[in-house]
Amino acid sequence: MSYAGASAVHRIDELAWQGEVTEDWDIFGATNGGYLMVMAARAMSATAGNRVPVSVTAHFLRPVSPGPIRVEVSPVKEGRALSTLRAEMLTGQGPVLTLLGAFADPDRMVPDVSLSDGAPPDLPPVEECVRLLPAGDAPLPPPLMAQFDLRLHPEDAGGLVGRATGRALVRGWFRLLDREPLDAFLPLLAADSFPPAIFNADLPMAWTPTVEMTTHIREVPAQGWLRCRFHTRFISGGFLEEDGEVWDEQGRMVALSRQLALVPR
Amino acid sequence: MSYAGASAVHRIDELAWQGEVTEDWDIFGATNGGYLMVMAARAMSATAGNRVPVSVTAHFLRPVSPGPIRVEVSPVKEGRALSTLRAEMLTGQGPVLTLLGAFADPDRMVPDVSLSDGAPPDLPPVEECVRLLPAGDAPLPPPLMAQFDLRLHPEDAGGLVGRATGRALVRGWFRLLDREPLDAFLPLLAADSFPPAIFNADLPMAWTPTVEMTTHIREVPAQGWLRCRFHTRFISGGFLEEDGEVWDEQGRMVALSRQLALVPR
Repeated sequence: MSYAGASAVHRIDELAWQGEVTEDWDIFGATNGGYLMVMAARAMSATAGNRVPVSVTAHFLRPVSPGPIRVEVSPVKEGRALSTLRAEMLTGQGPVLTLLGAFADPDRMVPDVSLSDGAPPDLPPVEECVRLLPAGDAPLPPPLMAQFDLRLHPEDAGGLVGRATGRALVRGWFRLLDREPLDAFLPLLAADSFPPAIFNADLPMAWTPTVEMTTHIREVPAQGWLRCRFHTRFISGGFLEEDGEVWDEQGRMVALSRQLALVPR
Repeated sequence: MSYAGASAVHRIDELAWQGEVTEDWDIFGATNGGYLMVMAARAMSATAGNRVPVSVTAHFLRPVSPGPIRVEVSPVKEGRALSTLRAEMLTGQGPVLTLLGAFADPDRMVPDVSLSDGAPPDLPPVEECVRLLPAGDAPLPPPLMAQFDLRLHPEDAGGLVGRATGRALVRGWFRLLDREPLDAFLPLLAADSFPPAIFNADLPMAWTPTVEMTTHIREVPAQGWLRCRFHTRFISGGFLEEDGEVWDEQGRMVALSRQLALVPR
């Protein structure tokens, strides 16, 4: 199923939306958080008259299994240029995600002033990068990886096969399959689809459950490949952060992400 | 009044708290957002059995004037190690901040694994840095600056007096007055007290209203001076981000912050 189809939500009440989490987005028995954030943000955006997401924060409460989900949206403020909304995603087991976001009317923004003190990650050509494709019943790579085309920088692919580079960095290409169009919500997925950067540090960590993730979306990405970069600098107090950058094929920075994850016991 | 006194909140109902915004925290006619986040986070923490803040996201809806505020807290989940809560801060004019946060039981975290790929900002001695102290009726520096001791790196102090360095970077020292103890909430204030880093870029911007700010607090800061660093890399689509780092006197990274701000018309 397409990304747009799998992440669609349908209005069932003035402020309630329904969607169907398919099993295709699984990663070790839990549904990918990026895919869930896209569904929730679609419901929030539609409630806000289709304003585009500019900041989406999600707290992850429980792992989500395939099946129906419900998104309950609470508008907080509708301003001239920005709408602020809360949302809760629920399954039959109760709340699974709680969110807070700002959505903008692009025509009311002021894109005149610009600054870019950064650059997209330097990546080898797509065909020289490492594609993670699920094979048979092996747990790695997870089924999620068949839902898009993700290619890791060869220097950063070692962490998955026991050859960590020692630096908590992951870079790579990302695009949808069959030239499906990228939309304003896609950065939420792209920023949460790569293997954790921390897998490349030589540390005893097999998974890193996300507590909170905030993504700032600056542009609707141009069609084609995205270039992504994820980096963890600090593990302390039982937590780690992962910072992400998503750049589009026109060389524009389309999103900045940061998640706080637990160091598992 | 002390930081602790000015930011105190008092329970008025099971899930409702009250505080008093004093005029000391003003900056150009609006109360400092860091101070408001401390008040809201105190109410959230107290509701969660005094668990400590680890991730606090606030969306800023309206400027806040001095006077009473009310914080209404909605617990979302109480887990073994983490509590997730929403909150809304209101004045007589309605909601002014809406928040989402995670609060932890430090005894349940796993601080064994650690990584630090970073360092505190390199600052000249405190006495060689620039203190911003309000003087008489001049609008700059704002009254806020008399509530703590903030010293800018001399290289970064030019943006405030029309001599922007061209780089959107601000570094400096921060501590409370009269050796008042630093607490787990203080990083929320420290990370939102410095002049915007963007004032050092040579751009036509006199203010940058915050849309959303997320702060990850990793440690309760050690007593003494904090070293802080703020940096804006991208202005695009009518928005800019400001990333902050707060380090304590023992050289520990105590907080990472990121805010999304509007490029004003």
